[in-house]
Amino acid sequence: MISPNMSNVYFDNNSTTALDERVLDAMLPFMTMQQGNATSRHVYGRTVRDAVEQAREQVANAVGAYPSQVVFTASGTEANNFAISGIAGNLPNSQIVVSSIEHPCVTRPTFAMQKLGYKTKIVGVDSNGLLDLVHLESILKNQDANPTSLVSVMSVNNETGVIQNISKIAEIVKSYKAYMHTDAVQSLGKIPVDFAGLNVSAMTISSHKIYGPQGAGALIVDKRIDIAPLLHGGGQEKGLRSGTENVAAIVGFGVACDLSVSELTRRFSATNALRDHLEKGLVQMGAVMFGNKAARITNTSFFAFPNIEGETLVMALDRKGFAVASGSACSSDSREPSHVLLAMGISPDVARGAIRVSFGANQKHTNTIEQVDQFLVTLKQELQRLKQMTGVQFDTSANNTKAA
Amino acid sequence: MISPNMSNVYFDNNSTTALDERVLDAMLPFMTMQQGNATSRHVYGRTVRDAVEQAREQVANAVGAYPSQVVFTASGTEANNFAISGIAGNLPNSQIVVSSIEHPCVTRPTFAMQKLGYKTKIVGVDSNGLLDLVHLESILKNQDANPTSLVSVMSVNNETGVIQNISKIAEIVKSYKAYMHTDAVQSLGKIPVDFAGLNVSAMTISSHKIYGPQGAGALIVDKRIDIAPLLHGGGQEKGLRSGTENVAAIVGFGVACDLSVSELTRRFSATNALRDHLEKGLVQMGAVMFGNKAARITNTSFFAFPNIEGETLVMALDRKGFAVASGSACSSDSREPSHVLLAMGISPDVARGAIRVSFGANQKHTNTIEQVDQFLVTLKQELQRLKQMTGVQFDTSANNTKAA
Repeated sequence: MISPNMSNVYFDNNSTTALDERVLDAMLPFMTMQQGNATSRHVYGRTVRDAVEQAREQVANAVGAYPSQVVFTASGTEANNFAISGIAGNLPNSQIVVSSIEHPCVTRPTFAMQKLGYKTKIVGVDSNGLLDLVHLESILKNQDANPTSLVSVMSVNNETGVIQNISKIAEIVKSYKAYMHTDAVQSLGKIPVDFAGLNVSAMTISSHKIYGPQGAGALIVDKRIDIAPLLHGGGQEKGLRSGTENVAAIVGFGVACDLSVSELTRRFSATNALRDHLEKGLVQMGAVMFGNKAARITNTSFFAFPNIEGETLVMALDRKGFAVASGSACSSDSREPSHVLLAMGISPDVARGAIRVSFGANQKHTNTIEQVDQFLVTLKQELQRLKQMTGVQFDTSANNTKAA
Repeated sequence: MISPNMSNVYFDNNSTTALDERVLDAMLPFMTMQQGNATSRHVYGRTVRDAVEQAREQVANAVGAYPSQVVFTASGTEANNFAISGIAGNLPNSQIVVSSIEHPCVTRPTFAMQKLGYKTKIVGVDSNGLLDLVHLESILKNQDANPTSLVSVMSVNNETGVIQNISKIAEIVKSYKAYMHTDAVQSLGKIPVDFAGLNVSAMTISSHKIYGPQGAGALIVDKRIDIAPLLHGGGQEKGLRSGTENVAAIVGFGVACDLSVSELTRRFSATNALRDHLEKGLVQMGAVMFGNKAARITNTSFFAFPNIEGETLVMALDRKGFAVASGSACSSDSREPSHVLLAMGISPDVARGAIRVSFGANQKHTNTIEQVDQFLVTLKQELQRLKQMTGVQFDTSANNTKAA
């Protein structure tokens, strides 16, 4: 098996992050000692129950919510599915509205509701990736047989890093008596997140995007909403999410949330410096930048080079030891151009060239300026090589005037 | 915070088990090194993808299935919900049949399907906790407007440890053109589990019941079934279960599955000796035994003492350092008598006294004969004390002739 080695450079932190050492330290007691089921009434059960409740406070504190508003899930995907099916599920025959740049774990559960009689609508974005508020209002105004029950718009896009004005969107949505959900998976740990201030009805967050373990996420829910569970069973999480609590992961998530606040400024500055350095070099090399006219999180750069396929460049850079993404990690198996870029009006040809660099500022695995410099040198070499290869193909294939 | 100490004894392994050290060792590299998202195409992604696929083989091997039949979930609860909603979901207006002794994570998602137009029926069990096959056939024969699409019967009951004849039940179910699902969460690691041999359409297993980590489970599925996903999104698990893979947990689950086969005989013998020793003592003390006339897994004893409330005894034993359960761990918050015992025809008064001891034979945390001896001594003392307390209450409350 070929594994990454010390010289490999990881620039794909919007996909997943390395576990922070302090998070692991907090988790290990729950993985080495005999532990109980958090539902059990004996001392083993009570001990892990206390740990879960402490984590719930940590999570709540990090996002400006009350502990009672935190429903633990196993992932951001589960929290998004829970939000869509749980909120709209109690309002039959209504309409669910999502933006054109949502992650598939928002869009697909929404489309799945069509089978149950729900209508769905998609709100567009402008060329910067910002929600088209006029379009949103025109959809909400049109209250026909299927009034809008729920609108879901992500706080920060995973590909471009563009930040939406969620409190403004929520204000519009609420004025039409609909519920507002936001997928805040990419904002937590990168910008301040304030559930109360955003004025949304529900918000999704995830542990493994903030140097916490995989296997934990949460839906933060305004409990005045009548939300139906997605997972039925033993009645954990006050009946809203059944299943034995993944205690170690939840404990780790709690600590990762603490760190997402205490380290926010450091992470922000560190990744901002890296991105500025990177983008200066990229622009000099003729890169097309995406979303950079809008407010963005500081760790993300999304760009393309004309006539170079993103997927090809990702593989070339991987062979040289740099891990970057070609659009959303979760759809990396797909060869379709990024739906986010298409929604922004980028042509499919340009969108197919998209490359995402997302920096990490983990205590132990922080990316460095030296890595960015090495990356820029390698990128230049690889671009030249790929352009030459294209040239060679032209020479040997007389009838073919278009690059592969 | 009061935590368990070295002198505490854990007899609640059907609720959750301690992580095997060898499992943790396999997980740690995925928690200490920079890792990728299993969907990513770079070396970090491919490395964890390989690890997930190796675990899939380990899980498949342990349960007599093909790797392609393994769909990873975050828990047994999720796998059971997925089975019920996923299989019946593609067969609208059909009937779902479950046994009267299922875990709530089978029964409740089944009842939740009623809102979508499904009918549900419950098959009873006999006084030993074995499925009433005549009742099952009478339900299946009655093919009215809602033909039965799915029958779910657990392989081993979590409270009594009683083993069902699943291949026989599956044969009946399939003869009526219905699909058969079994929750095998309590059988894996305690008796041989053979998906192909059981002849079921789908089977649920869970990691944390077999000395693996919390946060991993699987639905083993005959892929000829048209099953709908419960979690929609990035299309992981061939579109059947979206969400970033919890790599460390899946890797641990794989190793735990390996051990569930290689250590089966040792665990079987070790827990069998403990249980025989325990039950000899219990019978001498006048315990009522539940399910002991049927074939049972070897680690579980379910019993009651007349006029002693189970919940009270659990708390008394906990204070003396012994962790046992009063019925299903997942409904320990409930004061209702065990639905399993009521289904077996046990009177509510007797059922309220139920206590479950479930032994573990983990490499490092194996229960011992000495612990059983200590437990029997303590149990005797606590029973005497509780009976005396009851007596005192009688004396001080002249009008009250019934124990509290």
